[in-house]
Amino acid sequence: MSLLPNEVAKALNAVPTWDDGGHFLTGLEPGLDGIRALLDLGVAIRTHADELSRSRPLAGRTFAGMFFDPSLRTRTSMHVACNRLGADFVELQPGSGLWTMEFADQVTMDGTAAEHVYEAAGVLGRYAHVVGLRAFPTRGQWDREKSQPVHEAFASHAGVPIVNLEGPFAHPCQGLADAMTFRDLLGEPKRRKLAVTWAPHPKQLPMATVNSALWAGAAVGMDVVLTHPEGFELDPDALGHTERLAAEAGGSFRVTNDRDDAFADAEVVYAKSWGAYTGSAASASGHADAFAALRDWTVRSSDLAKGKPARFMHCLPVRRNVVVSADVLEGPQSAVLDQAENRIWGQAALLLALLGR
Amino acid sequence: MSLLPNEVAKALNAVPTWDDGGHFLTGLEPGLDGIRALLDLGVAIRTHADELSRSRPLAGRTFAGMFFDPSLRTRTSMHVACNRLGADFVELQPGSGLWTMEFADQVTMDGTAAEHVYEAAGVLGRYAHVVGLRAFPTRGQWDREKSQPVHEAFASHAGVPIVNLEGPFAHPCQGLADAMTFRDLLGEPKRRKLAVTWAPHPKQLPMATVNSALWAGAAVGMDVVLTHPEGFELDPDALGHTERLAAEAGGSFRVTNDRDDAFADAEVVYAKSWGAYTGSAASASGHADAFAALRDWTVRSSDLAKGKPARFMHCLPVRRNVVVSADVLEGPQSAVLDQAENRIWGQAALLLALLGR
Amino acid sequence: MSLLPNEVAKALNAVPTWDDGGHFLTGLEPGLDGIRALLDLGVAIRTHADELSRSRPLAGRTFAGMFFDPSLRTRTSMHVACNRLGADFVELQPGSGLWTMEFADQVTMDGTAAEHVYEAAGVLGRYAHVVGLRAFPTRGQWDREKSQPVHEAFASHAGVPIVNLEGPFAHPCQGLADAMTFRDLLGEPKRRKLAVTWAPHPKQLPMATVNSALWAGAAVGMDVVLTHPEGFELDPDALGHTERLAAEAGGSFRVTNDRDDAFADAEVVYAKSWGAYTGSAASASGHADAFAALRDWTVRSSDLAKGKPARFMHCLPVRRNVVVSADVLEGPQSAVLDQAENRIWGQAALLLALLGR
Repeated sequence: MSLLPNEVAKALNAVPTWDDGGHFLTGLEPGLDGIRALLDLGVAIRTHADELSRSRPLAGRTFAGMFFDPSLRTRTSMHVACNRLGADFVELQPGSGLWTMEFADQVTMDGTAAEHVYEAAGVLGRYAHVVGLRAFPTRGQWDREKSQPVHEAFASHAGVPIVNLEGPFAHPCQGLADAMTFRDLLGEPKRRKLAVTWAPHPKQLPMATVNSALWAGAAVGMDVVLTHPEGFELDPDALGHTERLAAEAGGSFRVTNDRDDAFADAEVVYAKSWGAYTGSAASASGHADAFAALRDWTVRSSDLAKGKPARFMHCLPVRRNVVVSADVLEGPQSAVLDQAENRIWGQAALLLALLGR
Repeated sequence: MSLLPNEVAKALNAVPTWDDGGHFLTGLEPGLDGIRALLDLGVAIRTHADELSRSRPLAGRTFAGMFFDPSLRTRTSMHVACNRLGADFVELQPGSGLWTMEFADQVTMDGTAAEHVYEAAGVLGRYAHVVGLRAFPTRGQWDREKSQPVHEAFASHAGVPIVNLEGPFAHPCQGLADAMTFRDLLGEPKRRKLAVTWAPHPKQLPMATVNSALWAGAAVGMDVVLTHPEGFELDPDALGHTERLAAEAGGSFRVTNDRDDAFADAEVVYAKSWGAYTGSAASASGHADAFAALRDWTVRSSDLAKGKPARFMHCLPVRRNVVVSADVLEGPQSAVLDQAENRIWGQAALLLALLGR
Repeated sequence: MSLLPNEVAKALNAVPTWDDGGHFLTGLEPGLDGIRALLDLGVAIRTHADELSRSRPLAGRTFAGMFFDPSLRTRTSMHVACNRLGADFVELQPGSGLWTMEFADQVTMDGTAAEHVYEAAGVLGRYAHVVGLRAFPTRGQWDREKSQPVHEAFASHAGVPIVNLEGPFAHPCQGLADAMTFRDLLGEPKRRKLAVTWAPHPKQLPMATVNSALWAGAAVGMDVVLTHPEGFELDPDALGHTERLAAEAGGSFRVTNDRDDAFADAEVVYAKSWGAYTGSAASASGHADAFAALRDWTVRSSDLAKGKPARFMHCLPVRRNVVVSADVLEGPQSAVLDQAENRIWGQAALLLALLGR
C-alpha cells in the first residue's frame, strides 16, 4: 500500500488480527506476539510520522471518543495519533451537551435517561470506524465493575472495535505506551528489573493503570516486582494475568510489602497510587487514615539510588511531593514525558492495525 | 471538477440553487425537485465516500455548528459529513465557554449578555462558509417560536448559508435522512403507505422532527397518514406544507385519531413523540396526565403486524418500552440505525450543494 | 518549498526568527521588523488561502489551545487558521473535562489540584508543536498578574512556543489583526491619526486588548492618541512600549482625558472598555459609580464625524448602545467584521512563521 512507508507496512503486516471484533478492552486481546508487534509498529510510525501525516493512510476513517470521565493525555494523544494518520477525531462528552444514558437491560425508560447505550453504541458504530471509551469504576461495586460493564455494553452493540481509554480494570493504551517506554529506556527489557510501587494519594484512585503497567512489564519479559502496603492488594485476576504473561515472555513476577526489596537493583521504578477495593482501607475514612500513615511511601531520589540506579516512570497526572518528590520528577532520571509522548505512538499503532489494512 | 467522481459531479449538477442565500431552515427551500436531487446526491456520495475522503473537494471550507441544545447524532454526523468531504468542522456551544448572547433588537446591553447575535452571526459568517444552528423552542411561546427567530436572526446577519440543525418548527437534516431511508427501504416510495404516529414520552418534546418527517414522506410521494390522540394536533402550517408537497409529488396526506386505521397496510411506521402546544395537554400537568392515560400508544410488534408488515423508524434518541417496545427496536423490522447513518449522507449532499460548486 | 505559493514563501522568508523559544506572549518579541513582516505574510496567506488549504504546508503539525477563559473569536479563528494551513487544532478547557491545575512552585499537592502546570505544559509540548493559552487576570493582584505568570509557567516548561490567546497584559493575536486592519483601511497608516478611546461597560474588563491595540497602531507608525476618563490610566509599562514603538516606527503617541481632542481629525476610532487597576474606580462599587457617571463616553456617530470622518474598530464582543451606538456598529464606517476576520490571517502568519520553515 503506497500510503505507508515500507518499514511501517512491514511492521503492520506483522501484527496479527484478533478475535472478538478487534476490541481492545484489556489490551491482552492481541496476545503476546500481537502486543510486541504493536510496539514495533509504534516505533515505525514514530520514525515516519511526517510522511504519514502527508500520505494520510486513514483518510476518511473516524475515531469517536466517548469520555464519561476527564482526560488530558488520553484525549489529546488520541487526537494527535488520529491526525498523524489522517483519521478524524470526534469527541463526545456525555456530561456536556449529550443525553443522559441508560445502561440497564430490560428497562422501561420513563425516568431521566433519554437514550439507551444500545442505540448510542449502534449509532456511533455507524458514524465511526473505531469507538474509544473512557469510564472509571463506581466505587464499592468491584465485583460488577471489574468486568468493565460499560465497555462491554458498547462492545456488544457498536458493531465496530471498541478501544478502552481507561476502564475499571485496565488502561491498555497506557500499557502500550509503558511497554514502548521500557524498550526505549533499556533497549532489550528482558530479565531487567521493574519495580512497580504503590504511592500515597489523597484520593482512592482506580487500579486500571497499575494493572496495565504490570502487564506491560511482563509482556516485554521484565522481572517485575510489585510492592505495596498491606491492605492494598490488587485484584487476583490482574495478578494472574501478570504471572501468565511473565511466564510466557520469559520474565518473572512477585509481590512484596518491602519497598527496599522491590527497589534493590531495579532499573525502572514505576509509581502509581490506587485505592483498596477491599478491607479496612477501602472506606473513605480508612483510605484517609492510610494516606496519613503511609506518606513515607512517596518515591524519593534515595529510592531510585537503591536501583542501578533506576529511571522513574508515572502515567501522569501526578501529585508532586505526595506521589513522588519534585526533584525526582524534574530530574534526569524521570521518563514521564517520554512515557506520555509514547501514548501517541502506541495508539497510532493500534489505530493503524485496526483500520489501515 | 476532477475532485469529484463522475457520478457525484453529475448528481451535484442536478441540484438547483435556491434563493434566500442558500439557507436551509425549513428544508423546503430547495423545492420538490431540489429535495429529490439532494437525495440522489446523498446516495452518490455514500457510494463514493472513500474516494471523496481522499480528494477532499471541500478542503479549506469550514462548517461552524452552534449548539444551543444538546446533540449526539446531529453533531457527530455533521462532523463526519464534513470529514468525508475534506471540510473542517468547528463546534460552538454557547453555554460552555462562550459569551451569553443577546437576541433582542433595539436593546441597551447593560445586563448580562456580552454579545449580540448580530455580531456573533456576522463574525461566524467571516470564519465559516456555512453555519449550522441548533436551538429548541421555548415552551409556551409558539406564536413567536414557530418562525424560528434565532435561526432567522442568524440568517439575516451571517452573510453565509444557515443550516438548521433542529429548530422549533423543522429538523430538515433529519428530514433528508428520513427521505433517503424511505427510498432505501422501499425502492420507489411513491404511493406506498407511511404511518406517522405520536408516541408517549414523559417530556413535552418539540414538533420539529415530526413535521420534517411528514414533509419527507410527502416529498417522495408516499401516502402519508398521521395519527395522534386528540389534543396533540400539529401546527396548521406544518400540515399545510405536507398537503402541498403530497399533492405536488403525487401522493396523499390525511390525519386520524385511530391508530389502527393508520397502521393498516402501512409499509413504514414512523414513531415520534411531541408535546401539545395548545389545549389542556399543553401544560406540564396536562402532559403528565396524558402520558399516564396514553401509554398504550407505545408502538409494539403487534402494531407493525397490522402493516404489510411495516418497517419501523424513529429519529433517536428513543425511550425503550415507552415510545416503542424493545423487541421492535432491536428486531429485524427496525431501520433506526440505517436512518441515523443516513444523517451523514444527507448532510454531506447539502454541504456539497452549498460549497462544492 | 513547493507547498507554499511563491508570494507566501517570499513573505515567510522575510520574517525573522526571534529569541526566547519563539514565544509570542506580549507580541513584541519579533521586534518591529518582525511584526511588519508578519503583517505582510498574513496578507499573502489571505490571498492564497485556497491553494494553502489544498497543499497543507503544516500537515502533521498540531496546535493545542488551552482555554482557561471563554472565547468565541479567538478559538474559532485559530481553528480556521490551522485548517487553512493543514495543521490540526486541539482544544483543551481546564474547567470542562480536565484536571484542576496547580501553579505554585514548591508545593505539596495534597489539596484539590491533581496536576501541576509543569507536567501539563511538558506533556502538551510533546503532543503539540505550538501551545496557545488564554488566561485572564485575577482582579486585585495587578503587580503579580502583569507579568502573565500562567503564560510564563507554560513557556518555561513546554519546550515549544507558547502563543498568548489573551493574557493579563497583552492580547497579541488581536494586535496582529488590528494592525492588519489599520493597513487594510488606510493603505499606508504612517502618520495617520488613531484615536483609542475608553468606553463604558458594566464589568471591569482586562486591559490586554487596549494595550495590544496601542502597540499595533504605534508599530505601523500611526499618530496614536489614547483618551480615557481620569482614574482609568493604563499601566506605565504598556504606555512605555507604545512610546518606544511609535518613536521607532516614526509615528507619535500621547494621552488625553479630552475625548474631542482625541477624535478631532482621527481616521480610525478604536473603542475598548477596561477596568481601573488602581484608585477609587478599581473597586467593584467604584466601577459601578464610574459606569453610571460616564455613560456619555459611549461612541456615537457624532464622535466619528469629528474625524475625517473616522472608521470604527472594536475587538468584539461589544455591548450595543453601551460601548458604541447600534447605528455606528451597523453602519458603513464600522470595520469590526473585517477586524474579526483578520484574526484568521494574522494568526495563520504566526503559525506559518513558527512551524512552516
